Amino acid sequence: MSQRTWARAFAPATVGNVICGFDVFGLALERPGDEVVARLRDEPGVVVTRVTGDDNRIPLQADRNTAGVAAQVLLARISSRQGIALEVHKGLPLSGGLGGSAASAVAAVIAVDCLLDAGVARETLLHCAAAGERIGAGAAHLDNAAPALYGGLVLVRPGDPPDLVQLPVPDGMACAVVHPHIEIETRNARRILGDSVPLANAVIQWSNTAALVAGLFRQDWDLISRALVDVVAEPLRSPLVPGFQAVKDAALHAGALGCGLSGSGPSMFALCRNLEIAERVGAAMQKAFADAASLPSEAYVSIVNRRGAKVREIGGW
Amino acid sequence: MSQRTWARAFAPATVGNVICGFDVFGLALERPGDEVVARLRDEPGVVVTRVTGDDNRIPLQADRNTAGVAAQVLLARISSRQGIALEVHKGLPLSGGLGGSAASAVAAVIAVDCLLDAGVARETLLHCAAAGERIGAGAAHLDNAAPALYGGLVLVRPGDPPDLVQLPVPDGMACAVVHPHIEIETRNARRILGDSVPLANAVIQWSNTAALVAGLFRQDWDLISRALVDVVAEPLRSPLVPGFQAVKDAALHAGALGCGLSGSGPSMFALCRNLEIAERVGAAMQKAFADAASLPSEAYVSIVNRRGAKVREIGGW
Repeated sequence: MSQRTWARAFAPATVGNVICGFDVFGLALERPGDEVVARLRDEPGVVVTRVTGDDNRIPLQADRNTAGVAAQVLLARISSRQGIALEVHKGLPLSGGLGGSAASAVAAVIAVDCLLDAGVARETLLHCAAAGERIGAGAAHLDNAAPALYGGLVLVRPGDPPDLVQLPVPDGMACAVVHPHIEIETRNARRILGDSVPLANAVIQWSNTAALVAGLFRQDWDLISRALVDVVAEPLRSPLVPGFQAVKDAALHAGALGCGLSGSGPSMFALCRNLEIAERVGAAMQKAFADAASLPSEAYVSIVNRRGAKVREIGGW
Repeated sequence: MSQRTWARAFAPATVGNVICGFDVFGLALERPGDEVVARLRDEPGVVVTRVTGDDNRIPLQADRNTAGVAAQVLLARISSRQGIALEVHKGLPLSGGLGGSAASAVAAVIAVDCLLDAGVARETLLHCAAAGERIGAGAAHLDNAAPALYGGLVLVRPGDPPDLVQLPVPDGMACAVVHPHIEIETRNARRILGDSVPLANAVIQWSNTAALVAGLFRQDWDLISRALVDVVAEPLRSPLVPGFQAVKDAALHAGALGCGLSGSGPSMFALCRNLEIAERVGAAMQKAFADAASLPSEAYVSIVNRRGAKVREIGGW
């Protein structure tokens, strides 16, 4: 194969916040995820030729498409005038709270970087993806894009540049994520939080982020469990999700370490000691959504993804 | 020695908040500290017979004295009607932001527990000490009492009961604490904070508490240093301390990992990689207080105290 003509990349779903760490923790799942195929084309510029799995709701114009913008920013960064055609295959539900915008953007930059054999540093790819995510989600906090790209459970410490700290993931730690068939716009979910937080709650929150990190380093399941509490966003956002309390109760009763919204919801996330528990928890959460709110849902159960986005296939001649 | 008739205990100065963790982190110094001597007396009840090092400002009435109340609560807890006489020797400056109320209360319960050979669990002693601290400081957040009792760098996660998590202290890690000759009342320093905090600042703060814990576990000095930032209390409290910015700049310039208020101030605290740097930093901070604010000061330089409070001497016949 002397020249690559196309590359197909995958980026996983991610759980922003990880319950206690609003805007600062994010975690990658094994599946589902988005795929992007990038192809060389003769004319310069980025075009998006096709989006699947989106019910025709994602714009095809490249500069209004998260994958398209991410690819444009990457090409500009490496001063390439190569024309690129993108296909975006959404495996993630739209507005589900699973980092769909970040996944498409990350898959795009991984695919383009591979296609052009550009060898761009991962941090640079991350910032190009974040530019794309800004289009899709209105803001980019890296708590989805960073775990989508790197995998694992990532602490994003705001700064210039931000610190991205990979936290230890105890062996076997698994997640159940359940996506009920309703939608919440990230922008609205953010507006509802307001601009300030009671100091007493903020203190609890920053004790919990610290305790979660300590628990992960020590593999102290009890401490992890006690730290997985959100007193800041959950009280304001959970009323947007019918059945929230019943689903949370069901997850904890089935053995979850903690349960809350995935990002801004409506998907709900439970962290578990192992895959077997996560499967039981996922089923209990689905049943609770059905019983308490008559909501059908999808469940995604997986271990924490430690590898992040990856190229799945390369074509050429 | 068939019966103990007195015991003398020491509890160290502590640095509440450790810059980024308002109300949730605390750290113990090797010195200075308070000492309490507890003696058997024939009449029941607790009396405080003497306080030294306080310029006659600490009340001798046992139920208005932090050491006295802590001892009363401990006696009640173990259902003892033994009479106790306390002497309190303040090594800590009053209202200095070095956990003086906690140190006296902790030294008192350690001394009484030893005197009576009661073998009370440390958690119980902590809660008795906290009851005493409430008298002296108006509130007890355990971020002073816990490190004064246990030593080390402690995360206090609020709860019932609270989690007390000993964080790893990299070998050699040292502190410089400089006490300028002014006073701040803890109650006022708390009132100035108000009841809420901007969400954006709260996010930064809980990323920093998480990053500090990760940095300590990894012995990553750079991450520790970047995490030692307080965007919540410092902007509101630092104007109460003349020369604050000059002292902080001097500490960082002399090699401190981070510098800020010790608790609610006015003492200032710098965390350093080792004792040699801490000595240089302490001298630079003192010079800056003198130059920028014409304030004389004391400097206390020590490694992090890993043992906490202790009995220093026992007497009997």
